[in-house]
Amino acid sequence: MIEQAQIEAMDFDDLLAEKRDEFDLPADTVYLDGNSLGCLPIAARERAREVVETQWGRDLIKSWNQHGWIGLPVQIGEKIARLIGAAPGQTICCDSTSVNLFKLLSIALQTNNERSIILSTQDNFPSDLYMVEGLGHLLGKDRLQLETCAENEIETALHDKVAVLVLTQVNFRSGKLLDMQRLTERAHALGILVIWDLAHSAGVLPIALDEWQVDFAVGCGYKYLNGGPGAPAFAYVAQRHQQHLRQPLSGWMGHASPFQFDPHYVPAPGIMQLLAGTPPVLSMSVLDAALEVYRDVDIIQLRHKAIALSELFRTLVEQSSELQDFQLVSPTRPEQRGAQLAYRHPQAYAICQALIAHGVVADFRAPDILRVGFSPLPLRFIDIGTSVTVLVDIMRNERWRDPQFATRSKVT
Amino acid sequence: MIEQAQIEAMDFDDLLAEKRDEFDLPADTVYLDGNSLGCLPIAARERAREVVETQWGRDLIKSWNQHGWIGLPVQIGEKIARLIGAAPGQTICCDSTSVNLFKLLSIALQTNNERSIILSTQDNFPSDLYMVEGLGHLLGKDRLQLETCAENEIETALHDKVAVLVLTQVNFRSGKLLDMQRLTERAHALGILVIWDLAHSAGVLPIALDEWQVDFAVGCGYKYLNGGPGAPAFAYVAQRHQQHLRQPLSGWMGHASPFQFDPHYVPAPGIMQLLAGTPPVLSMSVLDAALEVYRDVDIIQLRHKAIALSELFRTLVEQSSELQDFQLVSPTRPEQRGAQLAYRHPQAYAICQALIAHGVVADFRAPDILRVGFSPLPLRFIDIGTSVTVLVDIMRNERWRDPQFATRSKVT
Repeated sequence: MIEQAQIEAMDFDDLLAEKRDEFDLPADTVYLDGNSLGCLPIAARERAREVVETQWGRDLIKSWNQHGWIGLPVQIGEKIARLIGAAPGQTICCDSTSVNLFKLLSIALQTNNERSIILSTQDNFPSDLYMVEGLGHLLGKDRLQLETCAENEIETALHDKVAVLVLTQVNFRSGKLLDMQRLTERAHALGILVIWDLAHSAGVLPIALDEWQVDFAVGCGYKYLNGGPGAPAFAYVAQRHQQHLRQPLSGWMGHASPFQFDPHYVPAPGIMQLLAGTPPVLSMSVLDAALEVYRDVDIIQLRHKAIALSELFRTLVEQSSELQDFQLVSPTRPEQRGAQLAYRHPQAYAICQALIAHGVVADFRAPDILRVGFSPLPLRFIDIGTSVTVLVDIMRNERWRDPQFATRSKVT
Repeated sequence: MIEQAQIEAMDFDDLLAEKRDEFDLPADTVYLDGNSLGCLPIAARERAREVVETQWGRDLIKSWNQHGWIGLPVQIGEKIARLIGAAPGQTICCDSTSVNLFKLLSIALQTNNERSIILSTQDNFPSDLYMVEGLGHLLGKDRLQLETCAENEIETALHDKVAVLVLTQVNFRSGKLLDMQRLTERAHALGILVIWDLAHSAGVLPIALDEWQVDFAVGCGYKYLNGGPGAPAFAYVAQRHQQHLRQPLSGWMGHASPFQFDPHYVPAPGIMQLLAGTPPVLSMSVLDAALEVYRDVDIIQLRHKAIALSELFRTLVEQSSELQDFQLVSPTRPEQRGAQLAYRHPQAYAICQALIAHGVVADFRAPDILRVGFSPLPLRFIDIGTSVTVLVDIMRNERWRDPQFATRSKVT
């Protein structure tokens, strides 16, 4: 059995321990849902006041220049680029992950224009599949067919009529990690372009988009990047695909000279063309500030800590006689998963609600998954110990049976 | 000549005067650019703190239910609906104006699917034209052709091969107001659907979308609605077009049951389907709070005040011997324009910069337009007097010749 003193020693040895002080964390809460909504960095809180009260309130329209609002999409893009192994000029922040995926799907299909099949996994994050369906509905069956395969059969499902392979690196339910480098190579060998969704990867996994020759990627600002609820997303287009770029959501912010008010669209060079309408400056500014937390963080260290946190949780669960009904859905080996664990339990919904009521915030994914996320910067090892202690108490005393935990809410 | 005492009397008689106190306005500034970026409502400032510090910081993921984040798109949509003459269930807040226009263009073209021409004006807001071009590039020339006409020849340009007429009610440069009711009727008589862009209308002009049988509309949250820089936009789809709705940016927030994580897209009923990805909650919350300013405002009163402000400005300019080189581009009759005035002057850029440096914020639109906006809620009549006095001083003393006012910035 792991003793409390051993857990405390892990915190003592944690090289990232001080980063916790850069967050404004709620008292008496262990937050294991940073993979759904990252918690509040102090720099983000301060920037929110600054952008609303000083930049908007006092300097008003002048702030587009004076406070660099116009440069935010590129500035944030480059901060994220550093975290995903992208050289400058390939990453930009704008819109939502889904909207950005629509742009990239359209570009990829134009680039590989003699093929019309888009391949994904059945268990990809549904919104990614929905965006393929939406583009397919618009273009018609001749121009786009969606094929899906099981997650463990991707390599055999690849064939030389596939135009684009769309995958999420970390499965949103199970946390299973796909081998981005290998799958990209296999796809390229068959003339297939790849789009990777980094929603559950950016800011927590070492990623080398350029080195692995990834074509396109999208990702999310509000999970491990701690950019705030619904923070704008990002998009990556490898330099080699930027020459003939033409994305369909061609709004004025992606025009070569937006303030010339040219009646015809002339795309901005390079990644800037991904911009569509006027960006939500408040949300973007907060994300920009949140990314400051990462300025001095080594992603390898981050990965090691996330693994150590999740292994501690997994081991404590395994060692608790009260928790033997929790079936691990995630891969047991930490190298094969992202920074989360998923457990199947028939009462997962009520148990999750009971955890939340007792100060341990995890989340539920239909139909029966309890999902636990390990944001390495704000979490301590003693938080993991606490969370398992609370879970044991809930199971031992059947606290989840309280009727208040049975009612489903809109967002689960 | 209008005397200062007369101007002060206008403020004394202003029934909307007290609304000014609901804004946090910069000292020593006359802000005539609310048509580009509305100023900061106190309720928005307070909500920004609340949503960042309490809702995100303390309640974290629970806020989707507890603080109603999930309901914001509809809640904001209905607040805007009241301002644009739309019965409930037809207006929703999401994404940017450009992205929403893309959705509606696609829906309108599917609805009127035996035709393929989209008609607009050459002088429409360029981003609207760019979005038509973008959709056209995606669908191909067989499926979409863009035709443009002069703004004063719209009626004669209508013909029975046009699928969709896309117009902005108030011209972004000149402020010219189109007759929405009449043009919608003429279009319908030829089997043409209409999309109206209300960017410069919502929150300042009386609009009756339902009564005028408008099919679709989009609009902007950050101008007269004061929702903050880049605030999310809105979209309106008339009830009668919602039955066979299928928009292409079919993200999970527009799914009938987003938290079921169904691998296939099933559109939410009605206007909810317009949603795509996760919304930027911080920006949306601030817009939601900003709209509280309008809770007790009569739009007819608002229109009257905006006209009175602009007429005062126009008359003062007309009466100043120093300002005779300013050529009014906007219609002289106030019923024929929105809440702005545009003047042509060869030195418009430097004059605008000099105005800003002297505390009067107007804006410049290439190549030679000085644009002055009249947000009726925060502005007083004495502010108009002050702004013309400053302009006279700048022209009389040629202050605009200062070299610091010649340098163009990124955003103009």
